[in-house]
Amino acid sequence: MAGNTFGKLFKLTTFGESHGIAIGGIIDGCPSGLKLDLEAIQNELNRRKPGQSEIVTQRKEPDTVEFLSGIFEGITTGTPIGFTIINTNQKSKDYSHIKDVYRPSHADYTYEKKYGVRDYRGGGRSSARETASRVVAGAIAKQLLSEIKINAFTSSVGDIFLEKPYQDLDFSKIESNAIRCPDKDTADRMISKIKDIKKQGDTIGGTITCVLQNIPVGLGEPVFDKLHADLGKAMLSINAVKGFEYGSGFCGARMTGSKHNDLFNEDGSTKTNLSGGIQGGISNGMDIYFRVAFKPVATIIQKQNALDSSGNIVEMQGKGRHDPCVVPRAIPIVEAMAALVLADFYLINKLYN
Amino acid sequence: MAGNTFGKLFKLTTFGESHGIAIGGIIDGCPSGLKLDLEAIQNELNRRKPGQSEIVTQRKEPDTVEFLSGIFEGITTGTPIGFTIINTNQKSKDYSHIKDVYRPSHADYTYEKKYGVRDYRGGGRSSARETASRVVAGAIAKQLLSEIKINAFTSSVGDIFLEKPYQDLDFSKIESNAIRCPDKDTADRMISKIKDIKKQGDTIGGTITCVLQNIPVGLGEPVFDKLHADLGKAMLSINAVKGFEYGSGFCGARMTGSKHNDLFNEDGSTKTNLSGGIQGGISNGMDIYFRVAFKPVATIIQKQNALDSSGNIVEMQGKGRHDPCVVPRAIPIVEAMAALVLADFYLINKLYN
Amino acid sequence: MAGNTFGKLFKLTTFGESHGIAIGGIIDGCPSGLKLDLEAIQNELNRRKPGQSEIVTQRKEPDTVEFLSGIFEGITTGTPIGFTIINTNQKSKDYSHIKDVYRPSHADYTYEKKYGVRDYRGGGRSSARETASRVVAGAIAKQLLSEIKINAFTSSVGDIFLEKPYQDLDFSKIESNAIRCPDKDTADRMISKIKDIKKQGDTIGGTITCVLQNIPVGLGEPVFDKLHADLGKAMLSINAVKGFEYGSGFCGARMTGSKHNDLFNEDGSTKTNLSGGIQGGISNGMDIYFRVAFKPVATIIQKQNALDSSGNIVEMQGKGRHDPCVVPRAIPIVEAMAALVLADFYLINKLYN
Amino acid sequence: MAGNTFGKLFKLTTFGESHGIAIGGIIDGCPSGLKLDLEAIQNELNRRKPGQSEIVTQRKEPDTVEFLSGIFEGITTGTPIGFTIINTNQKSKDYSHIKDVYRPSHADYTYEKKYGVRDYRGGGRSSARETASRVVAGAIAKQLLSEIKINAFTSSVGDIFLEKPYQDLDFSKIESNAIRCPDKDTADRMISKIKDIKKQGDTIGGTITCVLQNIPVGLGEPVFDKLHADLGKAMLSINAVKGFEYGSGFCGARMTGSKHNDLFNEDGSTKTNLSGGIQGGISNGMDIYFRVAFKPVATIIQKQNALDSSGNIVEMQGKGRHDPCVVPRAIPIVEAMAALVLADFYLINKLYN
Repeated sequence: MAGNTFGKLFKLTTFGESHGIAIGGIIDGCPSGLKLDLEAIQNELNRRKPGQSEIVTQRKEPDTVEFLSGIFEGITTGTPIGFTIINTNQKSKDYSHIKDVYRPSHADYTYEKKYGVRDYRGGGRSSARETASRVVAGAIAKQLLSEIKINAFTSSVGDIFLEKPYQDLDFSKIESNAIRCPDKDTADRMISKIKDIKKQGDTIGGTITCVLQNIPVGLGEPVFDKLHADLGKAMLSINAVKGFEYGSGFCGARMTGSKHNDLFNEDGSTKTNLSGGIQGGISNGMDIYFRVAFKPVATIIQKQNALDSSGNIVEMQGKGRHDPCVVPRAIPIVEAMAALVLADFYLINKLYN
Repeated sequence: MAGNTFGKLFKLTTFGESHGIAIGGIIDGCPSGLKLDLEAIQNELNRRKPGQSEIVTQRKEPDTVEFLSGIFEGITTGTPIGFTIINTNQKSKDYSHIKDVYRPSHADYTYEKKYGVRDYRGGGRSSARETASRVVAGAIAKQLLSEIKINAFTSSVGDIFLEKPYQDLDFSKIESNAIRCPDKDTADRMISKIKDIKKQGDTIGGTITCVLQNIPVGLGEPVFDKLHADLGKAMLSINAVKGFEYGSGFCGARMTGSKHNDLFNEDGSTKTNLSGGIQGGISNGMDIYFRVAFKPVATIIQKQNALDSSGNIVEMQGKGRHDPCVVPRAIPIVEAMAALVLADFYLINKLYN
Repeated sequence: MAGNTFGKLFKLTTFGESHGIAIGGIIDGCPSGLKLDLEAIQNELNRRKPGQSEIVTQRKEPDTVEFLSGIFEGITTGTPIGFTIINTNQKSKDYSHIKDVYRPSHADYTYEKKYGVRDYRGGGRSSARETASRVVAGAIAKQLLSEIKINAFTSSVGDIFLEKPYQDLDFSKIESNAIRCPDKDTADRMISKIKDIKKQGDTIGGTITCVLQNIPVGLGEPVFDKLHADLGKAMLSINAVKGFEYGSGFCGARMTGSKHNDLFNEDGSTKTNLSGGIQGGISNGMDIYFRVAFKPVATIIQKQNALDSSGNIVEMQGKGRHDPCVVPRAIPIVEAMAALVLADFYLINKLYN
Repeated sequence: MAGNTFGKLFKLTTFGESHGIAIGGIIDGCPSGLKLDLEAIQNELNRRKPGQSEIVTQRKEPDTVEFLSGIFEGITTGTPIGFTIINTNQKSKDYSHIKDVYRPSHADYTYEKKYGVRDYRGGGRSSARETASRVVAGAIAKQLLSEIKINAFTSSVGDIFLEKPYQDLDFSKIESNAIRCPDKDTADRMISKIKDIKKQGDTIGGTITCVLQNIPVGLGEPVFDKLHADLGKAMLSINAVKGFEYGSGFCGARMTGSKHNDLFNEDGSTKTNLSGGIQGGISNGMDIYFRVAFKPVATIIQKQNALDSSGNIVEMQGKGRHDPCVVPRAIPIVEAMAALVLADFYLINKLYN
């Protein structure tokens, strides 16, 4: 109920605060007999970790995952996979200035009011550091779903949009630049924009597009657990996300049925794919694609007014090392959450076939 | 797992196909001692039912709910509330023409592939008729949350947008016109547009905006079950929905942090509300507002190609009485799903207080 | 949370009070493509219904199940199966004498204290009438598990015990007498005992033994959801149950390991079966057998003291038509609950194979 | 689904194999603001740990719990409590002799058949070592429920029974001897019996009685999640348990209603308590008491036949240091599981009051 578990059959429960001893989680329901590529898992974590480029926070965290159970001689045993990632960089002193202060557009105020107490160091549980655990689980889900291709990339930063349709992109280029946009020119402009913003001590939002390919027909449960509903929830659960659309999305709301309908080919595929690969909440075998909106990071290196716990407005200034734009580091998180949703439905689907 | 239950503490499980004997559901977890206004429940159903105006389907279904349990002398007893809505208008013959045909952008194909069998009459389980059960449960949730105000309205039809911010609208006008847009001029243009589209045998999409007011601080569970993540899933589970955004939404992705941050007042409220009333997944007491995109209805009264179960492309034409635009009838559904999400978190929140 | 759902994948949610309009339920997660024998389902209900013999209550309820959804042309569609059983015999006047009275060893007092309100007619939700819905769902589960044999029978009434081991019994004789004990001599003595008890206006307890045969290896999930733990919970959730043991049970607690261990045959079967067909919570392919203890029915036709809602001790006497011993009518309930547990694990097991 | 989570609101998920790096778990749903006595938690672990007396296994494991999250300055924050217990004594070489052997009445065979792979070292996941994580969570649940008294004690070893009713016992004496029986004479006989058995290289079963006192009225959810059904499942999920009974238990099945009914006092308490403190699945405020049967440990230090993975019967002999009787070390586990069940219902109950 407390909301720290994701999934029904391939279940991830996470724990940990930004500046506690460790973060980690338990993956329950991973089938036995899966030979794990542990390096691939660590590689996903490396894509998310701080300090990897000049447009992300310069904090240093090795983010090394240690598996404690559920894997024997490199193979999953069907028992729960427990893992931890030690917090090596717990500069708790950095955060004494926010002990009694609620920063604007952070979760300080709401946690304090909800729980009556909070671990204020680095955002505590509300820090996006928690998502490292999701990346670990998502990396295992990806290996379970080895035939499915999951590619997320930056599709906008502020007002700079990647205009090409995803079909014209070379996904192998995603990792070739710091912003993870597969189109070099657009990527350069995005990176330049983020550097400018960073100089101003400000931050900027952006969007990520994710494409799921080679999807079997039949994933998703109708009515409440529609495939896109669970994908939407998964994405909206990522820190800083403000919106989700799939297929034609908000543009679809402006169209007519005669234009929007996807006509069939004889093999069951469709000539167009405004539906985004899902009909009635169930995958139809076409590509699934969706877009996720991220707000600008709330911590800025400018003076701002905040509220203290006594009800006074106080001036504060963000310190330390923060991301000017979350989007590049959020890409492995989007992919991980997509993989978790797919793994769940993949397992559910086995029940009924 | 099969996805017919929504909620964790205030739980709704629905059953029923469009043209079976009845649809209905079980509400489990409604607290005891709630004096129910049964007329208000039926009134919500009436807002959703077919035939209520000239811009919706002209089918006739009385949609009368019968409660079978859980209520004694007008008061909830804490035991499960079972209810049914009889399908009086089961013209099953109408649907023989689609028995072996997969209509474009419908769920026919995916259901058939997933289950190997389907009740093809009127869309069967994939029909939006199922949402009548949600409206019943949502109406009870609204009564549980009597202090919270939930108002949804049509904010666009095709390219006609309601331009005013919600603060400038008079919600008491929502029910004053068939499209449920509280601004008369915009409503008239929307209605006129839908009539045109209907004449062409076509359909059109639209968006609904929903505003939740007088919300207590502390609703929502951090990490996976963020308040907006569950609202998003709830909305995306409604038939024909393609997108969800809350607060600044997709526009927020174009902004800088210095513009996007909501500065505090001394009482904990904020001067602006780009956050949309939620911080870190937890309500902060400000208004919650979100927008939901609906695609155009797939059934059009024009000739279209479809696929039959033998793999042939066949020509077909939608018959019968369908909605040219789902938005006006979807408004009570959006409100019902919002109420179900809030009721769940309202109960969870009692654990911590 | 409110506890009206059983199962994880093959899920039953029930609703309904003893003297409301109807009882019923929703079965969610039944695989599609199962051809149902509806007569067999009704037959299970008939085994449970009142008035079937002179040693059970003489109330008359036809207990006819009506299916409302999830079945199309006699075959399950994978969508939820909603069903109702109308309460035809709602003699509510019979119960006015207990409106403000808490009967000893009934749930009147605890429901009133927990919920602040209760439907006092015939025990309301606490009545064993609710178990008719379980029998419906269990009958479908049995058809899903057609290869597994499930046989429950009366193994004791008061101090009259069926002494033979189950291997020496002919299960085809279970239905040949009113007490459902496959040994005729013992059955006769049990029936005679119950008639005596009934004449005295008293009631008596008993035990049911259940044997599950032809079980695949691998059912059950280790740690918390051990097969026997879920069987135990299922049985303990039946009205009037006070104890559960499987395999060697309480006798096993008196033995030594050298006597208790079940040695293997070369094919993986075991020479003895004190384990009761389960090792580490997982079925090993041997017969599963367990025993369930039922207390005597609390309603007796003798004068007793009760408590009224004002805190006075009042004299009362049970009226109407009650069971002198629940055991014969509980047999189909025990089988139904066993079938529900097995169906759940059967589906879970498909994940790993 | 995979069965490694217990509880609905106060939820424990455990991970870890006997001879992996560590065992541990996540407690999700513990309310915020609870000041934890960490020493009391470690003390419960010490009651369970090996090597504590001469009648338990002489293995040495410090069993020190480390908390990784969810506690800030000694107080719970409402976020998940992650914890680990390092396995210091991983003598994996000890277990090479069982790598390809299925020991009788162990879970080796069923795990291998279910998962196709197993961590054979020390029983892996099926080892009772997992229960240390339960003791940690149960110790926190006890602190949440500080007003409730939970006392378990040994009520039989083999044929030696503690004859006194629990009302005549002094629970403060439970920890005064190695077998944890509060009656000194009986304890001496039990200990002597276990020493004899141990000398023979054999093992012996026993029973534990648990008494829950000062229970609020209203815990438990009717129908499927009856308080005693969840207690039963909790107990049956403990390694080696074969039976559960509460209140009058199996004896109740031999009684008449006129003897079994508990008559009320004017204050709602009852003159007798054959019901065991629960009516209709809901606590009535009287003492709850139940009894749990444990089979003898399967590992004996005698020659026995086992099965190898090639289907040959092979002779083997248990090595190492095993418990001659699990009962004394199981007492803190029984208490922990009872505390987890009560904590869950305690929180659920807050929802409706």
